[in-house]
Amino acid sequence: MNISGQYPSALLEKAVNEFSRLPGVGRKTALRFVLFLLRQDTATVENFAKAIVRLRQEVKYCKTCHNISDTDTCHICSNPARDASVVCVVENIRDVMAIEATQQYRGLYHVLGGVISPMDGIGPSDLQIDSLVERVKQGHVKEVILALSSTMEGDTTNFYIYRRLEGTGVQLSVIARGISVGDELEYADEVTLGRSIVNRTPFVGITS
Amino acid sequence: MNISGQYPSALLEKAVNEFSRLPGVGRKTALRFVLFLLRQDTATVENFAKAIVRLRQEVKYCKTCHNISDTDTCHICSNPARDASVVCVVENIRDVMAIEATQQYRGLYHVLGGVISPMDGIGPSDLQIDSLVERVKQGHVKEVILALSSTMEGDTTNFYIYRRLEGTGVQLSVIARGISVGDELEYADEVTLGRSIVNRTPFVGITS
Repeated sequence: MNISGQYPSALLEKAVNEFSRLPGVGRKTALRFVLFLLRQDTATVENFAKAIVRLRQEVKYCKTCHNISDTDTCHICSNPARDASVVCVVENIRDVMAIEATQQYRGLYHVLGGVISPMDGIGPSDLQIDSLVERVKQGHVKEVILALSSTMEGDTTNFYIYRRLEGTGVQLSVIARGISVGDELEYADEVTLGRSIVNRTPFVGITS
Repeated sequence: MNISGQYPSALLEKAVNEFSRLPGVGRKTALRFVLFLLRQDTATVENFAKAIVRLRQEVKYCKTCHNISDTDTCHICSNPARDASVVCVVENIRDVMAIEATQQYRGLYHVLGGVISPMDGIGPSDLQIDSLVERVKQGHVKEVILALSSTMEGDTTNFYIYRRLEGTGVQLSVIARGISVGDELEYADEVTLGRSIVNRTPFVGITS
């Protein structure tokens, strides 16, 4: 079905155009969304629109870790039960949510807002790296955990942060790379398998 | 990545909830959409929201064929070059767009707004069937083409329309079912292949 042409209504076409800007949404999916909304009550659609606009207008970023927050300091940074001496550096808020969901981490975060990527015109000054260095220099942070993607850009960013934090005395670590729990060895790529052997950990009877 | 839990912001969670109501959109995709919008200008997001609300509030349906339209009569029904004696009955506006895209049809449409589906609580009175019968009874329509999906519901609706139009003298036809152009016979299902043999058409040297 080729629906590239003729929309029967300019209003419809405008709405389809807007939806097709979303990542991974083509014009056919956008039309499906729009026709779905057309079948809803006007109030429902207005609430939908209001939620988006309010989010964009009123969203705040935590002034310490730059995570999205409804308050000046996010609920993680303001939680006295969390270990403020450990800071995990992540790319974006989705990574924070993924790590939080594991319930294995009790430290704080620092959301960079991306990784250094000269191809996309993203340099260190576009990211929250200065504020990370500032945060470390205040002296309360003992360990910085780098949890960026293991891509060229992630590695570049890791190295840049390493250089910037040299001499501050903070301990720098990266998350473990290895075979996923439940994965078969034979299907693992060589780099991951190699790293998982080099970075082997002592065997303990029960892992919690 | 399990992100079912904790959203760092109630505003964010609300926006994700709204997006995940869209058909085929789960919470992860919704979060992706929301984070994309957060990276856009406030004006861009406001335009996005305005396009949706304006569509819902100002959308009109053609009073003749019930297609979406910006005017009381849609651009198809008001086009004097189209053949008003042929009416193609379709389920929704996407079908109109699909048929229009073929550029093979010069008649008018009648958009039912769905098909009869007792399981979903959709009866004949929820669809634009009365207005179709009314339209036929006015006497200008010579042929009604049924172009509904070949599902149980589509067939039921076809039969219901057939019964309602009995005695009006209008010619009733259904679109041809057969092997798709370019498809291999061996992969076609038996019903389609059987129908395509029963409903064979005279061979002409060149099909336009």
